[in-house]
Amino acid sequence: MANRRDFIKKTTTGVALAGLVSISDTTMGGEVKINEALVHHVFFWLKDPDNKEHLKQLIEALNKLIKVETIKMSHIGVPASTEERDVVDHSYSVSYMAFFDSKEDQDTYQTHPVHLKFVEENSHLWKKVVVYDSVDV
Amino acid sequence: MANRRDFIKKTTTGVALAGLVSISDTTMGGEVKINEALVHHVFFWLKDPDNKEHLKQLIEALNKLIKVETIKMSHIGVPASTEERDVVDHSYSVSYMAFFDSKEDQDTYQTHPVHLKFVEENSHLWKKVVVYDSVDV
Repeated sequence: MANRRDFIKKTTTGVALAGLVSISDTTMGGEVKINEALVHHVFFWLKDPDNKEHLKQLIEALNKLIKVETIKMSHIGVPASTEERDVVDHSYSVSYMAFFDSKEDQDTYQTHPVHLKFVEENSHLWKKVVVYDSVDV
Repeated sequence: MANRRDFIKKTTTGVALAGLVSISDTTMGGEVKINEALVHHVFFWLKDPDNKEHLKQLIEALNKLIKVETIKMSHIGVPASTEERDVVDHSYSVSYMAFFDSKEDQDTYQTHPVHLKFVEENSHLWKKVVVYDSVDV
């Protein structure tokens, strides 16, 4: 925890993390705002959501997928055990998020051989995919 | 770009960013994997999506909301101009993402006065909200 607090303190005094996680002028308190990123967030619903082997295969495949060079930061997750509320969707199987520097880098990724191979080898596992792409304002 | 590449190089040789953005054993190439985080991603659909004042108000309010102490990293965005595909949802107005260290920190945020004030002052602007909470696997 000491290290983490030092990190937060450092960044909020204006030391940007070399562009990847940069600090906006409005940053205060314990908060780091990501700027100049294209966030590509994908949610997968497995055909057989109780099949642990399918879940494992998809997660292992995503861990290979995130090696694509234009992905600058990523997160792979499953639904958190947060409170059940009408607005919270806990129904998906896997969350996969990739941060790119630009739309062009995301376009490169879409047709990258590693991405095409990922889809070819794993798309039989899921019944639904929803993608949200967003850029900073 | 030189700085960014230096940063990537440094982190992939094993220097963790003091816990916030940490590097997994499987990290290779130009990629930083976020670990030990609860990702809280919220999508807002405005009642009047063409009203620039409403969009501005919501974004300004989110920029205040991200000061809540338990938020360790955040991103505020609008739909990217990525390719229109069946699986991509570009219909929302605003994307808001907050990274917490734990479920407990997210729970604290939910009842934080700054969060309650945000909802009170801005909920009339939106017609729909979808929240996805995920934790690493």
